[in-house]
Amino acid sequence: MKKINVGMLGIGNIGTGTYRGLAMNHQKILDTTGLDIEIVKILNRHPEKDRGIKVPDGVYVQDADAILEDPSIDIVIELIGGIEPATTYMAKALANGKGVVTANKAAIAANGQRLSELAQEHHCLLRFEAAVGGGIPILTSLTTALLANAFTEVHGILNGTTNYILTQMSEYGKDYEDVLRDAQAKGFAEADPTADVEGIDAANKLSILMSLVFGIGVAPGDIPTQGITSVDSNDIAFANESGYKIKLLASAREEDGKVAGNVEPALVPDTHPLASVSNEFNAVFVTGNIVDDLMFYGRGAGPLPTGSAVLGDVIDIASKLHKEAAYDTVSKLRYDAPATFVGEGASKYYIRMMAVDEPGVLGRITTVLGSFGISIETVIQRPGHTDRLDAAAPHDNAPIVPLLFIVHKVERSLLDQALEELLAQKLAGSVENVLRVEE
Amino acid sequence: MKKINVGMLGIGNIGTGTYRGLAMNHQKILDTTGLDIEIVKILNRHPEKDRGIKVPDGVYVQDADAILEDPSIDIVIELIGGIEPATTYMAKALANGKGVVTANKAAIAANGQRLSELAQEHHCLLRFEAAVGGGIPILTSLTTALLANAFTEVHGILNGTTNYILTQMSEYGKDYEDVLRDAQAKGFAEADPTADVEGIDAANKLSILMSLVFGIGVAPGDIPTQGITSVDSNDIAFANESGYKIKLLASAREEDGKVAGNVEPALVPDTHPLASVSNEFNAVFVTGNIVDDLMFYGRGAGPLPTGSAVLGDVIDIASKLHKEAAYDTVSKLRYDAPATFVGEGASKYYIRMMAVDEPGVLGRITTVLGSFGISIETVIQRPGHTDRLDAAAPHDNAPIVPLLFIVHKVERSLLDQALEELLAQKLAGSVENVLRVEE
Repeated sequence: MKKINVGMLGIGNIGTGTYRGLAMNHQKILDTTGLDIEIVKILNRHPEKDRGIKVPDGVYVQDADAILEDPSIDIVIELIGGIEPATTYMAKALANGKGVVTANKAAIAANGQRLSELAQEHHCLLRFEAAVGGGIPILTSLTTALLANAFTEVHGILNGTTNYILTQMSEYGKDYEDVLRDAQAKGFAEADPTADVEGIDAANKLSILMSLVFGIGVAPGDIPTQGITSVDSNDIAFANESGYKIKLLASAREEDGKVAGNVEPALVPDTHPLASVSNEFNAVFVTGNIVDDLMFYGRGAGPLPTGSAVLGDVIDIASKLHKEAAYDTVSKLRYDAPATFVGEGASKYYIRMMAVDEPGVLGRITTVLGSFGISIETVIQRPGHTDRLDAAAPHDNAPIVPLLFIVHKVERSLLDQALEELLAQKLAGSVENVLRVEE
Repeated sequence: MKKINVGMLGIGNIGTGTYRGLAMNHQKILDTTGLDIEIVKILNRHPEKDRGIKVPDGVYVQDADAILEDPSIDIVIELIGGIEPATTYMAKALANGKGVVTANKAAIAANGQRLSELAQEHHCLLRFEAAVGGGIPILTSLTTALLANAFTEVHGILNGTTNYILTQMSEYGKDYEDVLRDAQAKGFAEADPTADVEGIDAANKLSILMSLVFGIGVAPGDIPTQGITSVDSNDIAFANESGYKIKLLASAREEDGKVAGNVEPALVPDTHPLASVSNEFNAVFVTGNIVDDLMFYGRGAGPLPTGSAVLGDVIDIASKLHKEAAYDTVSKLRYDAPATFVGEGASKYYIRMMAVDEPGVLGRITTVLGSFGISIETVIQRPGHTDRLDAAAPHDNAPIVPLLFIVHKVERSLLDQALEELLAQKLAGSVENVLRVEE
């Protein structure tokens, strides 16, 4: 077991999410990696504010140097946001030999090269998975498991606010202004939504992706960027009729040493996986010259999902600081959890059977199922299929018909007993198929 | 620059894909990581067979020990498949201090614990990203960037053959037997499809996922497994009508220390991201207690995609063997590629304009666009919207109507010139919106 001391700069949404996430899974992380990670200091300029978390006495500090200059701190998490003073703080932490984790897209898009070089110079690690796509592990994947690829294209839905607005406009035919007000009320859009709806947030993230994917430095301000404010219900209607969804895409593609890239609302064919990314979800679609098409989908914002990415980076740095403790989590197949395997479990089920076509049969089937505690959600009775009649007829003369239904959550073994009973009572001639229904 | 010598056991589909992938991107990998990876020996029992790759003299060997006992080899890639002799070979490689990479789901599902312990004992690394989901970096993500999570659920479409069959049945109303024959002809299904269509392949992969996600060891044979052979056109029709897709799901969920899991064709709601995973593609959907829902989508098979995962594992082990060379690829923002940024690039575009409603106008618009080399793919003319009439009317008296079209691939700057010309000639009263169309 190795103790890792972490200092956190800032305790807003992502800070509280990170703190809560660590509290939830501290033991699991310790069991899996041997790393005892503790957030020992938090820069909090407003300690009087209730953050909804319980922090021990002495953890809150008012001066960044109390963290940056503390030799007992191994890793600094930067969650202040904005380019400065965040960049200065991160540079100081790296110069003092500390690992740095940040969720700050603006600072990395603006100063990533300088910070990256500083990290290398001081043999420290810098991580920023949370800066692009929130909880989606896209940056780690691009730079580890997918490293053997040269990439030709990347397309991202990188802003949850605009994707929520476009989805609501498309699904309910609402106007931009109405949906924006609704999104602000629900907390999916800021009071000043400019950075989101004008595509600035997405351009920052695309700048970081272009560096990792194509090895090219493009300032966010140099990326052609168009927001969603010009999209109106005529465009949405045309797209829907023509087999497209309108999405705010951050895209870049390389051909013959030239990289084209921009942020723009674009028409995406319904058959493309990006078209099914709805509401506040984010996704990144990349094409590599070996792996071909890949898509990563998940929550691009929110305290806990973003905290998941921050904590993943902390664990990564910690495991490299203490190689022996976290010897090798990747290859460690685990068989040591106290959990037991119980087989199939309970589920909703779809059942297709051939049933006797007589008055009152459906009621009797329902009664039998009910006696096993099984209730029906959906029933469809179809005209009989003649090719099944002879094989399945339970009575000599009664016509039989296919009966399809979905039942509410039940243990499979209990369902099987109930179906046996239907067969025994000759209410069903045969059970043709039983399939689980996912919710 | 560090030289890494790799020995490969087997040179079938995945072996040739791995060899070709490395040949394609050797220089890119060297530039990014400082690692000079070379496949120096390949176990090939049939060197007379043409594999479609060029291998230098002396690389093919006929005896596994020529690789397993060669002290100059750092990493062994096992691509023989099947439980034995693959397990014995991997054990020997680990005992001899070599890193091991495998795509062998059956051997890892059967002997992963033993091999994992052996790796730890000899301080070697064992990797098997390619064993689940082909090129999709799911195992690496679960064990690195997502390590801070406790997982509650995992659902995978882990077999491309069955997903192809179910998609074709659903989209074209074809019968199982017809689609299977078609899939066999196209190479998406084996001559003996049993392991795929009966769910055995998916059960092997689920066994590996359950170990990584829940820390629980369940032999593939102990997982309740139902294949797709019982799914017929009645089930498909019911699912389509009721807002579901039928998918062969490998699922596991944990509740109160109990893990339920099985492989079964299941009804997935159309609104769920897994429903849009079509044909030979795979996907894994996981839910963590911090990160919430995530989905990974990509090619679950094929020589190059699977080779991408194998090479990612090789690079991972190599970078740990030579920490200085591959100092830190994760944090290395790159700005050193010779590529140049060119802004938006060429694309198909959607244009919405208000146009004069006079005979022949559409023809004149087409002619102007044509003079810029722009051709039209789709046109929709709608009844006029009265609220736009006054603002947009180009002539004092002519009525104007919204005109929506999609044009074939063109540079944005050229399109803008053409639109300016339409405005200058008063064929268009206003250009309301221009959006990129993704293909």
